[in-house]
Amino acid sequence: MNLAVAMLIIFGSAKLLAELFERLHQPGIVGEILAGILIGPSVLGWISPSEFTSTMAGLGVMFLLFRVGLEVEASELMKLGGTAAAVGILGVIVPFMSGWGLFRIWGKGQMEAVFLGTALTATSVGITAQVLAAKGLLHRTASKIILGAAVIDDILALLLLGVVTSMAEGRVNVPELAMTALLAVGFILLVAGWGRRTMSHVMPRLKGKLRVGESQFALAMVLLFGLAALSAKVGVAAIIGAFLAGMALAEALPPRVHDLAHGVTELLVPFFLANIGLHLKLAVFAESSTLLVALLVVPIAILSKVAGCGIGASRFGRVIAMRVSLGMIPRGEFCMVVAQTGLGLNAISPSTYAVIVFMAVTAAMLTPPFLKLAFRSVLAPPPPEEEAFRIG
Amino acid sequence: MNLAVAMLIIFGSAKLLAELFERLHQPGIVGEILAGILIGPSVLGWISPSEFTSTMAGLGVMFLLFRVGLEVEASELMKLGGTAAAVGILGVIVPFMSGWGLFRIWGKGQMEAVFLGTALTATSVGITAQVLAAKGLLHRTASKIILGAAVIDDILALLLLGVVTSMAEGRVNVPELAMTALLAVGFILLVAGWGRRTMSHVMPRLKGKLRVGESQFALAMVLLFGLAALSAKVGVAAIIGAFLAGMALAEALPPRVHDLAHGVTELLVPFFLANIGLHLKLAVFAESSTLLVALLVVPIAILSKVAGCGIGASRFGRVIAMRVSLGMIPRGEFCMVVAQTGLGLNAISPSTYAVIVFMAVTAAMLTPPFLKLAFRSVLAPPPPEEEAFRIG
Repeated sequence: MNLAVAMLIIFGSAKLLAELFERLHQPGIVGEILAGILIGPSVLGWISPSEFTSTMAGLGVMFLLFRVGLEVEASELMKLGGTAAAVGILGVIVPFMSGWGLFRIWGKGQMEAVFLGTALTATSVGITAQVLAAKGLLHRTASKIILGAAVIDDILALLLLGVVTSMAEGRVNVPELAMTALLAVGFILLVAGWGRRTMSHVMPRLKGKLRVGESQFALAMVLLFGLAALSAKVGVAAIIGAFLAGMALAEALPPRVHDLAHGVTELLVPFFLANIGLHLKLAVFAESSTLLVALLVVPIAILSKVAGCGIGASRFGRVIAMRVSLGMIPRGEFCMVVAQTGLGLNAISPSTYAVIVFMAVTAAMLTPPFLKLAFRSVLAPPPPEEEAFRIG
Repeated sequence: MNLAVAMLIIFGSAKLLAELFERLHQPGIVGEILAGILIGPSVLGWISPSEFTSTMAGLGVMFLLFRVGLEVEASELMKLGGTAAAVGILGVIVPFMSGWGLFRIWGKGQMEAVFLGTALTATSVGITAQVLAAKGLLHRTASKIILGAAVIDDILALLLLGVVTSMAEGRVNVPELAMTALLAVGFILLVAGWGRRTMSHVMPRLKGKLRVGESQFALAMVLLFGLAALSAKVGVAAIIGAFLAGMALAEALPPRVHDLAHGVTELLVPFFLANIGLHLKLAVFAESSTLLVALLVVPIAILSKVAGCGIGASRFGRVIAMRVSLGMIPRGEFCMVVAQTGLGLNAISPSTYAVIVFMAVTAAMLTPPFLKLAFRSVLAPPPPEEEAFRIG
C-alpha cells in the first residue's frame, strides 16, 4: 500500500474518532485505540499489522515517554522511590499469581498458566502517560508513583519473561539472569542519578560550538535513541531509556526544542494507540469457550493490578492509592511479546494468544475512563474556549 | 535489528558527518548522503536498504516538500509559470535524448537506451529544496523557478515512465496516458489555484470548533497525507501533493504549528538523505567497463540538465539561469524506480541498474557545492556565533 494512504488512514481515523469521543465527553485516547480496531483486520480490513505499523507505533511510544520524561521533576520521583518500588513489586506478584491460579483452576497446563501469569504482569505505561500528560496531571503525587513503579515493573516483568522463556526451552541460566537484573538496575540508577546534572552542564557548552542546523534538537534525538538502544541492550524496554533521556534533558533544553520534539510526538502517538487496536482479532471469539476465558481474564487482569498496586501505595491514603492502581491497569506491547513468545515455543494455544491480546486491548481502553473518574476532583470542568482546546 | 539502534545509527551518523562537513566549509547535506554510503552495504554494512529505511525516507522527503511549500509565496510561483514550464520541459527532453543517444552510440539495445534516457529525466527536488531552505534562499527568483519546474518535470517524467514501461511490455495505451496527464495537470492546477484561499477560510473557522488536542496540527497532517495520497492516485509523486499541501496552508497556520511540523522534518530529513547513499553498490565497479559507463553517464546527466534547464531559464539572464540549471541537477527516488522497473522487465542489465543508481547518488552529492557556488554572491559569510548556527 502507498505510504501516504496508510498514513492518512491511520492518523486520520485516529484523530476523527478522538474528536468524536471528546464530543461525547469520553477520552479521545479510547477513540484512537478503537480506530485501530475499526480499520484493522477484524472490521474494515484497510490496515493489517505490519513492520510499518509496528515501527511507527514503536517510535510513537518512545517519543511519548521521552515527552513525559521532559515534564517530570526527577528529584520528586526519587523521593517517592520506596512507594514506587512497593507498587511495582506487588503489581507484578499479584497479577502473576492470579493469572497462573486462574488457568490452573481452569485445568490448563503448567506452562500455559505461567505464560498467562507473565502476560498479566507488565503495565504499559504509555496509555496512562498519555492521559496524564494531556490532562496536565503529570505533577501529581500519584502520577510520579505510577511512573516510578512502571520502571520497576518493567524490569521485573522482563526478568520474569526471561525465566519463563528459559523454563519453556528447558534451560534456566541463573547467573545470566542475575547479571541482566544487575545491569538493568545499575543502568537506570546511573542515568537517573547523573543524567540531569551532566546534561545541564554539557548542553549549554555544546550549543555555541556546533555548526549543524538545530544542533540541540539533533543532540536530544541522539541521546533519546542512544539511551533507548542501551536500555534494550541491558535488558529493559526501549521506552525506559526514552523516559530517562527525557528526564536527563528536562532542564537542559530550551522551549523551542521542546516544541520540535512535541511535533514528532503529536504525529506518532496516534500510531501507537491505533496499533493496539489493530492487533485485536474478533473472529476467534466465535468459539464460546474462548469468549468465556476472555471474559474471566479481563476482570482478573484489572482487579489483580488494582489490588497489588493499591496495597503498594496504601500509605498515601485511599484516593492516591486508587489513582495509582487504576493508572497501572493498562497492558500493551509487553503482553504481545509474551503472547508471541509463548506461541512460538508452543507453550500456549492460539486461543490463549487471542485472549491475551483481547485482555491488553480491553485494559488499555478501560484505563482512560477509570483515570478520569479517579482524578475527577482535580479535573475542573473545562471552560468552553481556551481550555477545551488543550485536552486531547 | 532493534528500532532504537537503527534510528541511532542512521540519524546519528548523518548528523555527525553533517557537522564534520560544515566544519570543513562543505555542505552538511553531502555529509548526510555520505553517511548513508558509509553505514550501508558498500562500506560498514551496518544498515541495509529495507522497508524501514524507505518508509522513513519517504516520510522525510514528504515533510521536506511540505515545509518548502509552507515557505513559498504561491502567487509569485504562479507568475513564473511560463519560465518554469520551459525549464521543466527542456529539462526532460535534453537529458532523455542525451541518455538515449549515449547508449545507442555505445551500441546498447533500444530498450536499454530508452530506460537510461528516462532515468535521466526527473529532478529530485528534495536535495535542492533542503539546501535552499537551510540557507534561507527559498524567496529568490531562481528558487521559485526551480520549484515550479520540478512540479512540471515530475509530471512529464512520470508520463514518460508510463510510456516506456508500456513499450517494454509491448502495449501502449494512449487514451489511458492522456487521461493520466489530464488528471495530474487538473489536480495540480485546482489545488494550487484554490487551495490557499480555501484553507485561509476553513482553518480559522475550525480552530475553535474542534476538541481534539493540537487540532490545527492534526488538520494540517490530514491535508498533507490526503493530498500526497491523491497525487499518487492521479499519477504524480506523493511529494508534489505534500508541496501543494504546504502551499495551501502557508497563511492558515500559526507559527506554533509551523514549529511542530518543523520538528518532524528535522527528525526525518536525515533518513531521506542517508537513504540515497544506502543504495550505492561500490562492488559492481570492479568491472572496468561498468566503471567506464558510469564515468560517462554522470557528466552527461549533469550537463544535459544544465543545458536544457539553462536554455529554459535564459531570459532571466546568465546568473539566474545558472542557479536554476544547477538546482535541477539532482536525481533521486525516481531514478531508483525507473531502474527497478527496467530491471524487473529485463529491459536493462544489472550493471546498467548500478550505473543509474551511481549517477543518482553522485548528482545528489555534487548539487550542494554547485548551488553554494551559484548563490555565493547572495550568501554572506556567516558571522561566527548566531548565524553559523542556522546553516544546516
